[in-house]
Amino acid sequence: MHFTTYDAPQVAADYTTIAEKSPFVYGLTNYIAANLSANVVLAAGAGPAIGAGADWTSTFPATAQGVWINTATVISNSESEIRTAAQTAHRAGTPWVLDPVAAGSAPEYDSLVKSLLAFRPTVIRGNASELVALAGGEGQGRGVETTLNSDQAVGHIEQLARDTGAVVAVSGPTDYITDGTATVAVTGGDRRLTQVTGAGCSLGALTAAAVAAVEDPLRATVASHAAFARAAEIAAQTVGPHGGTGSFAVALVDGLHTLANADN
Amino acid sequence: MHFTTYDAPQVAADYTTIAEKSPFVYGLTNYIAANLSANVVLAAGAGPAIGAGADWTSTFPATAQGVWINTATVISNSESEIRTAAQTAHRAGTPWVLDPVAAGSAPEYDSLVKSLLAFRPTVIRGNASELVALAGGEGQGRGVETTLNSDQAVGHIEQLARDTGAVVAVSGPTDYITDGTATVAVTGGDRRLTQVTGAGCSLGALTAAAVAAVEDPLRATVASHAAFARAAEIAAQTVGPHGGTGSFAVALVDGLHTLANADN
Amino acid sequence: MHFTTYDAPQVAADYTTIAEKSPFVYGLTNYIAANLSANVVLAAGAGPAIGAGADWTSTFPATAQGVWINTATVISNSESEIRTAAQTAHRAGTPWVLDPVAAGSAPEYDSLVKSLLAFRPTVIRGNASELVALAGGEGQGRGVETTLNSDQAVGHIEQLARDTGAVVAVSGPTDYITDGTATVAVTGGDRRLTQVTGAGCSLGALTAAAVAAVEDPLRATVASHAAFARAAEIAAQTVGPHGGTGSFAVALVDGLHTLANADN
Repeated sequence: MHFTTYDAPQVAADYTTIAEKSPFVYGLTNYIAANLSANVVLAAGAGPAIGAGADWTSTFPATAQGVWINTATVISNSESEIRTAAQTAHRAGTPWVLDPVAAGSAPEYDSLVKSLLAFRPTVIRGNASELVALAGGEGQGRGVETTLNSDQAVGHIEQLARDTGAVVAVSGPTDYITDGTATVAVTGGDRRLTQVTGAGCSLGALTAAAVAAVEDPLRATVASHAAFARAAEIAAQTVGPHGGTGSFAVALVDGLHTLANADN
Repeated sequence: MHFTTYDAPQVAADYTTIAEKSPFVYGLTNYIAANLSANVVLAAGAGPAIGAGADWTSTFPATAQGVWINTATVISNSESEIRTAAQTAHRAGTPWVLDPVAAGSAPEYDSLVKSLLAFRPTVIRGNASELVALAGGEGQGRGVETTLNSDQAVGHIEQLARDTGAVVAVSGPTDYITDGTATVAVTGGDRRLTQVTGAGCSLGALTAAAVAAVEDPLRATVASHAAFARAAEIAAQTVGPHGGTGSFAVALVDGLHTLANADN
Repeated sequence: MHFTTYDAPQVAADYTTIAEKSPFVYGLTNYIAANLSANVVLAAGAGPAIGAGADWTSTFPATAQGVWINTATVISNSESEIRTAAQTAHRAGTPWVLDPVAAGSAPEYDSLVKSLLAFRPTVIRGNASELVALAGGEGQGRGVETTLNSDQAVGHIEQLARDTGAVVAVSGPTDYITDGTATVAVTGGDRRLTQVTGAGCSLGALTAAAVAAVEDPLRATVASHAAFARAAEIAAQTVGPHGGTGSFAVALVDGLHTLANADN
């Protein structure tokens, strides 16, 4: 395992490739996180569209350069719409990110989440409880929140990556990203990321923008996670150690925008 | 009737109990207010989940420590999902908050709103038009907005509390909270609270976090309302008397976060 | 064609008429833009309600003074609900704004968008790709984003205005607003408006508030666009030329609030 941050060679260059290529990125997500997710994708320089309208699920994943499916989208969409979007991305060869929000929380819901693996996501990202549950362990999630630390999930995500062929990334005080062979640890961030609703969801969206712009999904996922962690540090500096979570959320988007527009 | 603010004994201690216990709080709300509501609950130190996905409505209200149902959730959910959530909370003994948004505005919709009373909400909170309509009077609401003053609703909410066994709280320039016997007036706040979409809805969510953490529902509801009013005053001080409503909304969340993390 | 800004005679007076009359404005929009749209309408001094709940679509468009329908609302609502809202506004004589988001993007979806023209919108506003597609040209949209410049759409929107009897407005570096005979160009704004999700959608909502308050739909639409452009300039001055898009979005709402509350 090696440790990295936004300062490592190639990481910033990979992140700013999003703004250079400005890919079209399509997502199915939940309405709590949709606004922040779209703003995060826009701040990075890509162009998002969100939601299942009429024939969008069977057309947009084919014309997009990247797709993300956040399973809490069940609060707005039918299982059939969600599967159509995953299948369309899979058939068109569009790289796509599975964000298994609340995996392990309820039986019927879990069947849906697991069924999406058949469409071979390029990246799976989530919190420790979700990914441990998806890997077949005891996730012990509480609604959409984790009760486990990312450190406890490392073995599980390496197994999940080998089982699915996907790059798997777990968020936490340290993020771990693995393709089942190489595992990268991304340090940094700020504890207030856990107090901004949809922060993790918007990292899933940002990762879709990254895999749309950077060919290697491991590198792309490291870049999105390292940029997110650095933007959180910039935000923490802007609002101070005791700054509130309202200001912090605004400054997080600013940080991603600043990094995307830096001369590098 | 007695008047109180965040400075009264016990009020701040009750509010900060939310952050100490960090309850899991589940809500059905509308997508306009969902993001702010989740951020308000997080700022107070609790953990929210929102929305009706697969079997969430029949499982989350039982595992949560508090639930809120905002009736404008009809814009995303079926009546059956909404009733299931209320029934599950009721059967599990989970305290729950009914926020009867737009009660009195349309006939078919009103039947649904009233039917939820059968599941015996712990707290009912709303604006004057909504609560007067729910109490059987002439509410005269305009969409989701009130045309009445909270002062005009006091008699109605006391009656509604006696009829339903719930604590009832009306928001306005002065908030009134009653269990049908004792009535508490909470002063403070800022007029810009009426110009931030979902502010009232997020107070419903915060009240669910409060009843999840503080056993007495009257005290819990006073604490959530007094903290909200104080956070609005902090926000007004931050952005100034002519500060815009965009900055005010951000500073409101900051205020709730600051109060939750104060040494007391 | 003549060029105008917020400084032209009558424009500011028309915009502040919204706050004076404080109309009730009802909208069907998408959950990505719903929160910003409601906050923009509130900042201007009007009272919004959003969404299709129970019998709202058959009642609110009749009691409202203005209505907007953003076709990306398909991600939450059935075609029948959307048509009912448009029909109710049409029959009640309530002025209404059609925002044909993503027109030209997918076949089945386009049929719905076009069918709404039968209910004779008072104003149609959108980006260049959407309006060119609606006018029967090659719109070449990419999801919900335009690939054309507003300058390229002028001839098309003049034709669309003549064909439909609506005032038609296209957003871009310069906005053009036409009734098919007179065409007004509104200059100003800031490029970051294209990096804030739902900015265009919220301009549609603001235009509904304007047509609710100002009788002449051409003047009303010029006022909403000129105020939006000026608010963007105020925001740009507040956050600086390199300020991030998170802060910019907050300052945009502040700008609209400041303009609405200026002594004029």
